[in-house]
Order: sequence, then structure tokens, then C-alpha cells
Amino acid sequence: MEAIKNFDELIDHLRIRGNRKRVAVVWPEDQATQMAVSRALEVGFIDSVMVGCKEQCLSNKVLMRHSDNITFVEAADSDEAAAKAVKLVRDGNADILMKGMLNTDNLLRAILNKEYGILPKGNVLTHITASEIPAYPKLLFFSDSAVIPYPTLDQRAAQIKYLAYVARAFGIAQPKIALLHCSEKVDERHFPFTVGFKELIARACNGEFGPCIVDGPMDVKTACSYKSMLKKHIESPINGEADALLFPDIEAANMFYKTIGLFCGASTAAVLQGTVAPVVLPSRGDSIMSKLYSLALAAL
Amino acid sequence: MEAIKNFDELIDHLRIRGNRKRVAVVWPEDQATQMAVSRALEVGFIDSVMVGCKEQCLSNKVLMRHSDNITFVEAADSDEAAAKAVKLVRDGNADILMKGMLNTDNLLRAILNKEYGILPKGNVLTHITASEIPAYPKLLFFSDSAVIPYPTLDQRAAQIKYLAYVARAFGIAQPKIALLHCSEKVDERHFPFTVGFKELIARACNGEFGPCIVDGPMDVKTACSYKSMLKKHIESPINGEADALLFPDIEAANMFYKTIGLFCGASTAAVLQGTVAPVVLPSRGDSIMSKLYSLALAAL
Repeated sequence: MEAIKNFDELIDHLRIRGNRKRVAVVWPEDQATQMAVSRALEVGFIDSVMVGCKEQCLSNKVLMRHSDNITFVEAADSDEAAAKAVKLVRDGNADILMKGMLNTDNLLRAILNKEYGILPKGNVLTHITASEIPAYPKLLFFSDSAVIPYPTLDQRAAQIKYLAYVARAFGIAQPKIALLHCSEKVDERHFPFTVGFKELIARACNGEFGPCIVDGPMDVKTACSYKSMLKKHIESPINGEADALLFPDIEAANMFYKTIGLFCGASTAAVLQGTVAPVVLPSRGDSIMSKLYSLALAAL
Repeated sequence: MEAIKNFDELIDHLRIRGNRKRVAVVWPEDQATQMAVSRALEVGFIDSVMVGCKEQCLSNKVLMRHSDNITFVEAADSDEAAAKAVKLVRDGNADILMKGMLNTDNLLRAILNKEYGILPKGNVLTHITASEIPAYPKLLFFSDSAVIPYPTLDQRAAQIKYLAYVARAFGIAQPKIALLHCSEKVDERHFPFTVGFKELIARACNGEFGPCIVDGPMDVKTACSYKSMLKKHIESPINGEADALLFPDIEAANMFYKTIGLFCGASTAAVLQGTVAPVVLPSRGDSIMSKLYSLALAAL
């Protein structure tokens, strides 16, 4: 498989592949969610289970056109919808969970519920973004701009594992994963993360995360520009062509996510990993295309 | 004075204003430093004192053309150059200090020296960047991508004071300063910074930082896009048109700095504040233009 380099290629790949993943959409009352689902139905890579108010859904004529590929599960309110959708995933009746018009915290509560939830004990719940930045020649994956504020070493290891896994699913045989930091020096006193980075690199070399190349600490310029790497006299197997970035904390990751969207014309897609099935959890401000791409990322 | 909206306007402003600031350049052995100094001499907003090897400097023919506005102080090595240049500033014989081809740590040691340095006791040394981002209609100032890793409340207060001061020097009567954070919620448990933000806003309202508007926590999209602010149903006097950003930590600030340079085509200028005179402290990878703009920022 040739590597998928942008979201158009991802959508094409799913169109050609043909098979449909079953998406449980929680409380799909808003236009943007309905439009994204409708586009995904049209391309043909999902079937959808709308968990909420059937009447409200069918008032959107675009959805009616795809009624063969939509089923409905009635729910009185968004909390009930969350519980029912999570149950569909847990029982193996849905392959993807998608948030509609409800508060993220309410859906997370259902996902994390010890008895009825879908996060296996011991799994790390983390957030992966795929970004298409006009000034970069390929997709750039990163964690974690939304869920884990200050990852522990174990959480970082899980994030690397997921990043490598997702990048490989995009056809990148040996993804290059950069451990980002404001400085490229390992500095125990001022920057305690950087010490842990050495261990993560060693674990990657031992094959713990499957085929991938992990290196750092380095800044985003060194990770994503061969010229910048040379200018700084740094030698790294990342070679200025990172496929994935592991951010030091949520502040840096979230800043990157917002900055590339606001100032660089980037498109993004995001999913939660760690659950028994991928969860699409768009934020309020996300566009229809971003929701569609997130569905595609989850469906791959 | 009309607000200066980009670096071309800044250079024009300095050209028209006419007066020359005296810059002590420490160990100016590299081409990029010499070229930047030469451009600033040409525009006419500096005189320069080259602290290093006269012969090496004059081998650059561009500098020879401006020899009326250059003096030389001989130094045997970069450490001696640092000490001599810092002394020039301390004795009132230079208005700006600029780093040439030496290690940042070595220059900082001279600046911070308790007996001979130029950081008054009790002052906070911090880093300010001015950025010109093609997708933003005006200059955007921010702290701190280089010096203070995790600012305390007092350090943040000093950073706000400097940001407000610098932005006002650019003709912005009441700069809008956003306290950035990945979330716009004040959350004592998960995000302890955000609690301090409330106090900083109160102190700004009390006039502690001079004319300015301070608000947060908010993310960079909310701070710099009115549309994003509305979409999130946030009301803030920043109004999506921030003049300055205070970053939560060095990871986020450095990420922003590197990202806008790499992916958004941004130009940047940077100085250290807190010392008795501004310090221009370029990093290895900075372009001639970035060094020139930094000199201009310091000279304003």
C-alpha cells in the first residue's frame, strides 16, 4: 500500500476499499454532525446508527436520501443517548462512536463508566490528531491536544504505540515519531521529561511499539525541516521528515493544534484511542470537513 | 502616533525618526550578524560598537562602508568580549546589547553577573517576541519562548508589564493581552495556572501594568479570531484581536514560535527585557532579517 498523504487520498482510499464501518452517533441534533455523516454515507465508508430523536434527524433532507444506510435508536435525552451508543459499541454492534450535540464530559462519563464503559482496564485513553498542513508534504499525526494534560512515562509509551499504529494504517511502513521539546538537550534539572525520552527511544529500538523510529528531544522545526536540522548541527534519524509528533504537554499540543488551524490553513481530523473502538469527539468549533475527516480516520 | 503594524513600518518609522542608538555587538564574527548590523547602519537607526576582532570585522566590505558609525573594542575571545560589552552598557556607553557568534549561556553569565552584570536586583529577565504572521492583520507580541520555563505569578506579572510597555511603544494605546491556556475554564485542580490568571486580570484592572486590557484563560484561536470567539460563545474584551499573548509555559510558547516560522511564513524579532538595556539574543538559526528586526525592536 502506498502511503496516504492527505485527506483527499484518505477519502478516495475508503471509497475504493468499499466496506462500511458502523458508526453510533450520539445525539446528532446539529447540522454539522448530520452533514458530516451524510457525506460519509455518500462516499460509502459508513453505515450509521443515529442515537437520539429520529424525527429531528429526518428533518434533514440530505440524511433521508441515505435512509437505507441509517438506523435509529430512540433516546429521550443526550445522557440516555450516550449510554445507549456506548452499549452498542460494547456489544459489538457498532465499530465507531461519534459525539454529536452534547457536552464532551457527559460522553466521556459514559465511555469511562467502570461497569458499562468501553475503556478496558489498564488502557490509556488519549487523543490523536491527523493534520494536513499546506506547507508540509504529508500528513502529520500528533498527541495529545485534548485529553492527557501532563503525560506520565507510561502514558507517553501508550501514545507512541497508538501514533505508530495509526501512521502504519496510513501506509507508512516505519513512521518517524519525534519527541518534541523546546530544547534538544536532555536536562534532568530544568526539563525532567527529557530524561524519560531516552528510555522511550530505547524501548522503541527494542521493538516495543512495532516498526517505527523514535527520537528526541527536538523542536518542531528540527522534526519537520531537514534544513533546520542541518542548521542546528543535529543528527537524527527523524531527518526533518517526521510523520508524528509527541508533544511534551497539553499546552504545547493544543497551541499547535489551534495555531495550524488559525494561521496555517491546516485541516485536521481527530480520534480518541485506547477504547475498544475509536471515538470521534469533535469540538464545538470544528467544521463539517473536519468531522468528515475524523470519521474517515476512525474508519480506516 | 499611528500603530506600527508590521516590520517594514517599523523600519520606516526608525528611518524617519532618525536618531541612532548605540549597539554593543558581542563577538560579531559571523556573516549574518555583520549583515544585520550593516543593514541597520544603512537605515540609520544605530551606531555600532563591535566588541571583538577589528580585523575580522573589516574583512566584510559591507561594514567598511559604514565605518563612520562603527567603533571597535578589541577582545581576545568571546568571553572577554561579553564582559567588555556588558560593561559598556552598564557604564551608559551603549543602549543595546547584541549577541554575535558565541554561546547564549556565556553571554547570559556576563549579563547576570552579580557584581558586573546588567540585571538590576529584583528585576525579572524575560524574552519578548514580536511576530508578523501573514494571516494576522497586525504584529503579535508574546512571552516567553526562551528564558523562563514555567513562570511564577510574579514573573507573569512582570511579563505582562513588559508586553504592555513594548506594545505601547509600537503606538498601540491600550494593548490587548491574552492569557493563553488550552482551556477557557478556570480549573484549580487540573490547571493551577488558571487560578492565578484571575489575580493578574484584577491587577491589570487596577492599572498596575499601565494602559492595557488583560483577559483569559483562552486559547490562541479565541484570542486572535473574532469568529472563533463567537463560535465558542465566549465574551471577552480581547475581542479576537489580541496584540499580545502570554503563554502558559515555555513548551507552548516555543512551539508557537517555531510553528509560525516553519508553517505560517512568519517573521519574528526578539529581545530580552528586564536588563538595564534591551538585549538582542538571536538563536543560531535566525535569518539576517530576523536579526535586523530584533535590532529595530530594541532600538524603538
